[in-house]
Amino acid sequence: MKTLFSVVVLFFVSLSIQAEDGHNLWLRGKSSSTVNVVSSKKSVTLDIAKQELQQGWQGKEGSSVVFTVKADKLIKGDGFKLSSAGIQANTDFGILYGVYELLRCQQTGEEIKEGVINPSYDLRVLNHWDNMDGSVERGYAGLSIFWRKGENSLVVTENDKKLWQEYARANASIGINATVLNNVNASQLVLTPAYLNRVKAIAEVLRPYGIKVYLSAKFSAPALIDKLKTCDPVNPEVINWWKAKAKEIYTMIPDFGGFLVKANSEGQSGPQDYGRTHADGANLLADAVKPYGGIVMWRAFVYAASDEDRAKQAYNEFVPLDGKFHDNVIIQVKNGPVDFMPREPFSPLFGAMKKTSLMPEVQVTQEYLGHSIHLVFLSTMWEEFLKSDTYQEGPGSTVARCTDGSIFPQKYTAIAGVSNVGLDVNWCGHQFAQSNWYAFGRLAWNNKLTSDQIADEWLKLTFYKYSKSNADQISFSADWKDNFLSPVKKMMLESREAAVNYMMPLGLHHIMSANEHYGPGPWWAPARTRKDWTPPYYHQADSLGIGFDRTKTGSNAVSQYHEPLNSQFSDLKTCPETYLLWFHHLPWDYKMKSGKTLWDELCNHYDAGLQQVRGFQKVWDKAQSYVDAQRFTDVQSKLRSQSKNAQTWKDACLLYFQTFSKMPIPYDIERPINNLDELINNDMKRPSLINY
Amino acid sequence: MKTLFSVVVLFFVSLSIQAEDGHNLWLRGKSSSTVNVVSSKKSVTLDIAKQELQQGWQGKEGSSVVFTVKADKLIKGDGFKLSSAGIQANTDFGILYGVYELLRCQQTGEEIKEGVINPSYDLRVLNHWDNMDGSVERGYAGLSIFWRKGENSLVVTENDKKLWQEYARANASIGINATVLNNVNASQLVLTPAYLNRVKAIAEVLRPYGIKVYLSAKFSAPALIDKLKTCDPVNPEVINWWKAKAKEIYTMIPDFGGFLVKANSEGQSGPQDYGRTHADGANLLADAVKPYGGIVMWRAFVYAASDEDRAKQAYNEFVPLDGKFHDNVIIQVKNGPVDFMPREPFSPLFGAMKKTSLMPEVQVTQEYLGHSIHLVFLSTMWEEFLKSDTYQEGPGSTVARCTDGSIFPQKYTAIAGVSNVGLDVNWCGHQFAQSNWYAFGRLAWNNKLTSDQIADEWLKLTFYKYSKSNADQISFSADWKDNFLSPVKKMMLESREAAVNYMMPLGLHHIMSANEHYGPGPWWAPARTRKDWTPPYYHQADSLGIGFDRTKTGSNAVSQYHEPLNSQFSDLKTCPETYLLWFHHLPWDYKMKSGKTLWDELCNHYDAGLQQVRGFQKVWDKAQSYVDAQRFTDVQSKLRSQSKNAQTWKDACLLYFQTFSKMPIPYDIERPINNLDELINNDMKRPSLINY
Repeated sequence: MKTLFSVVVLFFVSLSIQAEDGHNLWLRGKSSSTVNVVSSKKSVTLDIAKQELQQGWQGKEGSSVVFTVKADKLIKGDGFKLSSAGIQANTDFGILYGVYELLRCQQTGEEIKEGVINPSYDLRVLNHWDNMDGSVERGYAGLSIFWRKGENSLVVTENDKKLWQEYARANASIGINATVLNNVNASQLVLTPAYLNRVKAIAEVLRPYGIKVYLSAKFSAPALIDKLKTCDPVNPEVINWWKAKAKEIYTMIPDFGGFLVKANSEGQSGPQDYGRTHADGANLLADAVKPYGGIVMWRAFVYAASDEDRAKQAYNEFVPLDGKFHDNVIIQVKNGPVDFMPREPFSPLFGAMKKTSLMPEVQVTQEYLGHSIHLVFLSTMWEEFLKSDTYQEGPGSTVARCTDGSIFPQKYTAIAGVSNVGLDVNWCGHQFAQSNWYAFGRLAWNNKLTSDQIADEWLKLTFYKYSKSNADQISFSADWKDNFLSPVKKMMLESREAAVNYMMPLGLHHIMSANEHYGPGPWWAPARTRKDWTPPYYHQADSLGIGFDRTKTGSNAVSQYHEPLNSQFSDLKTCPETYLLWFHHLPWDYKMKSGKTLWDELCNHYDAGLQQVRGFQKVWDKAQSYVDAQRFTDVQSKLRSQSKNAQTWKDACLLYFQTFSKMPIPYDIERPINNLDELINNDMKRPSLINY
Repeated sequence: MKTLFSVVVLFFVSLSIQAEDGHNLWLRGKSSSTVNVVSSKKSVTLDIAKQELQQGWQGKEGSSVVFTVKADKLIKGDGFKLSSAGIQANTDFGILYGVYELLRCQQTGEEIKEGVINPSYDLRVLNHWDNMDGSVERGYAGLSIFWRKGENSLVVTENDKKLWQEYARANASIGINATVLNNVNASQLVLTPAYLNRVKAIAEVLRPYGIKVYLSAKFSAPALIDKLKTCDPVNPEVINWWKAKAKEIYTMIPDFGGFLVKANSEGQSGPQDYGRTHADGANLLADAVKPYGGIVMWRAFVYAASDEDRAKQAYNEFVPLDGKFHDNVIIQVKNGPVDFMPREPFSPLFGAMKKTSLMPEVQVTQEYLGHSIHLVFLSTMWEEFLKSDTYQEGPGSTVARCTDGSIFPQKYTAIAGVSNVGLDVNWCGHQFAQSNWYAFGRLAWNNKLTSDQIADEWLKLTFYKYSKSNADQISFSADWKDNFLSPVKKMMLESREAAVNYMMPLGLHHIMSANEHYGPGPWWAPARTRKDWTPPYYHQADSLGIGFDRTKTGSNAVSQYHEPLNSQFSDLKTCPETYLLWFHHLPWDYKMKSGKTLWDELCNHYDAGLQQVRGFQKVWDKAQSYVDAQRFTDVQSKLRSQSKNAQTWKDACLLYFQTFSKMPIPYDIERPINNLDELINNDMKRPSLINY
């Protein structure tokens, strides 16, 4: 981990010698000509907009761009209107987003479309799972950019502000307008004055970029901070405590966004501790921030150590509460019903709560997708999720349309991504993990974008080689497109399916190592551990077969899906094979659509995943001459580790499942190179961090 | 490691339940019919011969076999004559060897050839590098079968005797008739009465099987045991000490074989400590054992930390002494001029010392060939070595003919193999390492055998599945031959070339890890280490190229080879590419016969080696139904580790050499999955055991 100081030093060095360390992200464009900016209004935000335009302008020399801040019925929220005259928006922030749109088009060679562009979601939120001591839960890119431990940890330095500004600029450039500064497994400390002072400082740096700060609130904070005897949401003292706390915060940060809450989940306290509902709890906090325009994002990620299928529990808990939440509450729902797996069907809550604002939560940090070691472009996963049809209001009721206000008249629309940002020089640990930050922002702004387009944009912005000869005019040569852009984009677009293949194909899920959620751990099931924290609970492998029966003969979780999905998923003839073992327990010799047995097909998937990663290595190595040395080597090195790990996944899962199937791995497949007992011993030797 | 007790228990269990753990080696044959044995003479050895014949007879029911111990001019030493009447030999041991020959033919389906069969070498020796504390230097099959540490370590138990008998029987069955019981890096302890008592006990068990015991003698023993002030070989006190010691030994063990000596080599004392020559030293001991018919095997494995090319030093040291050794001295010469590498040209000493008995020393234990983890059938390496033409007495002066008495009238002919035997249930650590013990014995008996035949025999004897239905008649079905024998034999025959490919192709040598001599370590060169112990001394890689220049422009080691070899090796047009970097330093872009650059060819070899091992895994997995479960799993597990290690070798060497070549690994080759810095760090973390 670099210290903050060295981060900044490296940043400047990198600018001066043209070496690239990834710190500049996708913001590497430089102006090739001058542009006049005309603005009748003046503000810090408009100054930034002007400066960005002048620094990055690639349009006609001497053009004029007029900023017009003026309400227009067609322009919604942060939207803007582009025309030959310039940019019009309701707010200064809208102008800034218009500027970034213009620059992106110029720097990627995309045609600039005139007309109104509105964002899909009002709130485009990053959730930082940053702890007060500077560690980041499920963070793989170094320590927190917001918090640190030790003496003077709360002193705001110039370096802090510089980094926060860079962070704000990066977010604004892709449309993110909200950030939750601390972990959902929250500490009450953040709600105390010393920490709130730092929150205020952060808010001040982020504000000109249109980004509001939010905090994760610990439900038991009144007891922990002020020794209240209860945190019961109907208790007047508790109600007053939260009102006073809201007032205190808003006095310091008038545009404070509100709270994010994880309650009655995985050991966190919540309203159920007092016999109250999630609605009671959410409304308590919502009422406290309501006078100031604040909101509460209340997480639906709840499950008890009960006999009930974990995949069913959020739905069971929340659907009965539909209509009981106050209008400034948004229920934040993970994309899948279990937990950010490489592939899950969408959570049945989407579209099912028709009288409640719902927002998707996706995970940008790669907790279950290879951390910042594996190259996995998550955009395709999110695209698949957003385009999933819930059928809740007839065909075409996609998750995207169920959450962006197209179908249900939600007061607020929002989408959240769990951040992958840390103090690492390149922000995200892996150079390509930046593409996930980028993709999340782009999809949050426009949930109809294709992953192909997002990858195309990101690669052009991130890897185009500026040089003396081409700095004044960006042109993507056929050579560059054929030998860099096209193969590398293809690799990105395949990368998530590869990860599914070598980790959890055919609907398998939650079979990772219990420790770091990195490698495989299908065997992990110590005595006296809650079953729903162990992989065998999820894969259900036995001598007869494999998979979780969620049909009528099993947990019947499938019934939570709106028809025709219920029938489609229940029926083996129509259930997509990608979800097969999510919904069905099937014999090892079950005949797949390919004609192969389930066992053979499973083997083929694991091997295909490994071969795909090997292919990625070749793609990248062949791209060497198109990439600066440091970033080339960074990625090359990580791909090697990914390849090794993909082999470990394949070997572990096939050898483990083979102890049940008793069938040979098809002989046309490369053999395992690891022995099961060694893999298990290595896994078990690691410190157990039960922290789901 | 199993205790001796459990070894024996397992042995009996394995016999009774038909499970196989490998303890029975290639001696699994059972009689299918009765045979009458007629012998005019009676002895323990002839009783054994009779019992073996009756236990394993697969010939005609009720046949008669006559044992005739009677001298015959055509029968030499341990030879024998087979005829329809029976077996004739000079000695009882000859009868026993004839019995094993008969049984081998019956059990492998080979036609029994009538006539005289004589061994290629008089002495067919196993060298055990066993230490007095029970550890085995370069042993990968558990502790010593002869020595152990702790209280009562010198007590001879029934279990000891049982194991030694099994060992003796295995050796006799393949013709081995001599065994050196302790490490060449010798302890003087073995020459003291308590230890000699145990030697006597071992000799008594081995004697009926025709095996004589030998001991490695420490040159400084007179000083260490009896505090003599010098060990100078011309000092009368020293001379008398050795004479007395010989007398003491021969009094206890009348057929004691003699001494093996490592002197003035790698820290061992020797005659040069007193300004004397190796001949002075060897003759000292030779004279002491001469009255009893004993011999001295004196090792030529010597090299000083000088500037002279290590590959030249043994020749330089010993050739001037030709003719100066007494006639019961045999110079024991390692097959190659450096040290048991995966591939070396033969040592130029062979055929060069025309007035001295010379014996080859090969290494059965896989010090540099993957320990008992890699499946490497060494027979092909030894065959290549024995068939190498030295040209010393014209074309056809092969190493075999230079050492077996065909060309030079040596008083003694001998060949030694460094044993791979230990206390492991299967004796050798790896089931297939047994084939190397087998092959060494077979080649020592008949140095014209092909590796194909040896592998064929060994596989039939070792893996034929006896069952109730076929126990009475061995028949190798087409199915068995096509699907087991043929592919598995092919794997064995390719296995050494595969190891050369993934470890040290194209004449590279001595680039293994300094620690265990297992994995790769081309980088290893700490400050203040003698250069000739470091891999960079041997590969000489730099920005210009790679390889050790042993031509006239370099060390001129090539001049030690008899013409036309000197010219052939010196000339790039005629130097075999297998020895290319042994004799030449060549530029990375040197054009190989394939048309490829040296760098590309090197990459191809490393990758080919890895792919070969992957192929072996498939061969073995496909053979599953033909092999008992335990041995199948044993080998399968080791092949996985070998595959992983082959990948490590490939990655380490290519990534390390790439730091010099600066050339890309050809894009049609699978990419490395390890990073060089991690490989080096892992290697360096191991405890340094500088012990060459």
